[in-house]
Amino acid sequence: MKKHNFFAGPSVLPDYTVEETAKAIMDFNGTGISLMCMSHRDKSFDAVMNRAVELFKQVLDIPSGYSVIFLGGGASLQFAMVPMNLLRSKAFYVNTGTWANKAAKEAKLFGEVDDHVSSKEANYTYIPKGFEIPKDCDYMHITTNNTIYGTEILEDYNSPIPVVADMSSDIFSRPLDVSKYGLIYGGAQKNLACAGVTFVIVKDELLGKVDRAIPTMLNYQTHIDKNSMFNTPPVVPIFAGVKTLEWIIQNGGVKEMEKRAIEKSTKLYDEIDRNKLFKGTVQKDSRSRMSVCFVMNEEYKDLEAKFLDFVKARDMVGLKGHRSVGGFRASLYNALPMESVDALVQAMKDFEKEN
Amino acid sequence: MKKHNFFAGPSVLPDYTVEETAKAIMDFNGTGISLMCMSHRDKSFDAVMNRAVELFKQVLDIPSGYSVIFLGGGASLQFAMVPMNLLRSKAFYVNTGTWANKAAKEAKLFGEVDDHVSSKEANYTYIPKGFEIPKDCDYMHITTNNTIYGTEILEDYNSPIPVVADMSSDIFSRPLDVSKYGLIYGGAQKNLACAGVTFVIVKDELLGKVDRAIPTMLNYQTHIDKNSMFNTPPVVPIFAGVKTLEWIIQNGGVKEMEKRAIEKSTKLYDEIDRNKLFKGTVQKDSRSRMSVCFVMNEEYKDLEAKFLDFVKARDMVGLKGHRSVGGFRASLYNALPMESVDALVQAMKDFEKEN
Repeated sequence: MKKHNFFAGPSVLPDYTVEETAKAIMDFNGTGISLMCMSHRDKSFDAVMNRAVELFKQVLDIPSGYSVIFLGGGASLQFAMVPMNLLRSKAFYVNTGTWANKAAKEAKLFGEVDDHVSSKEANYTYIPKGFEIPKDCDYMHITTNNTIYGTEILEDYNSPIPVVADMSSDIFSRPLDVSKYGLIYGGAQKNLACAGVTFVIVKDELLGKVDRAIPTMLNYQTHIDKNSMFNTPPVVPIFAGVKTLEWIIQNGGVKEMEKRAIEKSTKLYDEIDRNKLFKGTVQKDSRSRMSVCFVMNEEYKDLEAKFLDFVKARDMVGLKGHRSVGGFRASLYNALPMESVDALVQAMKDFEKEN
Repeated sequence: MKKHNFFAGPSVLPDYTVEETAKAIMDFNGTGISLMCMSHRDKSFDAVMNRAVELFKQVLDIPSGYSVIFLGGGASLQFAMVPMNLLRSKAFYVNTGTWANKAAKEAKLFGEVDDHVSSKEANYTYIPKGFEIPKDCDYMHITTNNTIYGTEILEDYNSPIPVVADMSSDIFSRPLDVSKYGLIYGGAQKNLACAGVTFVIVKDELLGKVDRAIPTMLNYQTHIDKNSMFNTPPVVPIFAGVKTLEWIIQNGGVKEMEKRAIEKSTKLYDEIDRNKLFKGTVQKDSRSRMSVCFVMNEEYKDLEAKFLDFVKARDMVGLKGHRSVGGFRASLYNALPMESVDALVQAMKDFEKEN
């Protein structure tokens, strides 16, 4: 790739994933057929689906009793599917920002929602800590990485109720104790594959306990029973996901991904803290390793547009912050090389000198 | 492509679509960024989405008052979304086979279903004709092409109630009078793109008339209001769809697609009717142009496996019939060249001589 890709998503993927996918689109595994034109019922694609599940389990060290499925519709559809499948009377939603709110909104269609734990009063600049998890709820929902506000939950909670986690934007960036979760879901388009597939890791024993009638396609059990082939799955993103998982393993697994995430984000936060032009927007103990949000210090606010032009001229894309926070956001997903962080840090230093 | 691809879906796409998609995955429109890694909020992808809508409207000559949206989840998810958005009390489902049944099953979760018009008693070997469309229903649902049984509805019904059509497997194979439909939907993976996107063409005035609470992602209006960008859309299949639509236009539009479909299917049905080994499974007036189902005549039944080996050796894939019908199925989608039909017909002739 010829650009430093800081997009929030769809975003940078390993060159290996991109090249192998392009190759398979021209000829899938030497079959003489494009990956786009291969029946999902052919044993050659069946092998891809099985490998996707197997690699997911290997990379995240998923214990037995959990299923891994791949669905369409995006993580946003999971905001509805989670309560549809799990919510009997009340659920606990930790409110850490836009995505957490969107998830809670859908849950309210299916039952009561306790969302009193929130950092809204501080524009979501921290992850609430030390709160009690209500035992009378069916599950607790968290958004582990908040792309818009730049905060991240880096612990696996010891919870008396099942933890449901939207890990769309930080899956595979650290080892997880999956046994502490009831369900983990996420869109592919950050650390896994191109947009169009959503992964769900679910503890089997949690399913089948609600009374409502669930449409077939919205019932997790449908997809578990058919190994994600109840209907035609999104073939290309699943293939790409397999390639990214292979790349993660080749590069030392999620332990190494975590090491790199810490190195990359530390380097950038250090520069933000050092540089007289910039400041971070988030409490230090809640800073995300994936989504680094920062703004110009008040006295330099009018330099924001100029800085965006400055980095653009150095082949960096995707650094404009979300309108809810303003300023800048650098997404440091797994596949972003250290060279891109170095380029950004250098640009910040050079821009400081010039201004 | 090096094979004659008769898969039922995912299935053959134009070489142009395949090559342009592979190229964009390596470098999207000269941006230096892969199509897989490009933010959907970037103006370069915005242009793709707008072009997809525009080309859909152009190719199908869609009148004003209709919206075109692109969703994830497959046509199977539409089986639930259609009644969720449109069914107030009762709907009429014409039962022409497996897919029609699956659609009706989901509708029953949301209201009453009249599905008395059916060809089930004859193993779905014909399209019911001359029936009265019940005026007391909110809409009539049809499956225009029945991939499993090989029948096809080739008329645009004059209906007193809105017609909802699943056109997953024959969209773009003939000109349509869209004004006679309330909603048309379909999965992409036959005549449009790789699997992972579902198109919906909906008459705007039909929406907003049900009382039930619809989850945000399952509400058509959400996606209309956001031009299919409420959440991250399946970027690669939408790009591929644009390329196929361009290919259709370059090749003379849906009128020419219809001409080719008639030529290809006529040539194959003629050989089925002539050849002493084979027979069609469907009433002649209900035969599909897209999904040609045929079996061995009773006295040659034991040659079926041998014929499958015979065509396989001639680089043909996907000819095994669905287990509900047995025998053979040749899917003749738009992108299947006449040469592939010629190769199959020649194989049938040669096999006849040898046996």
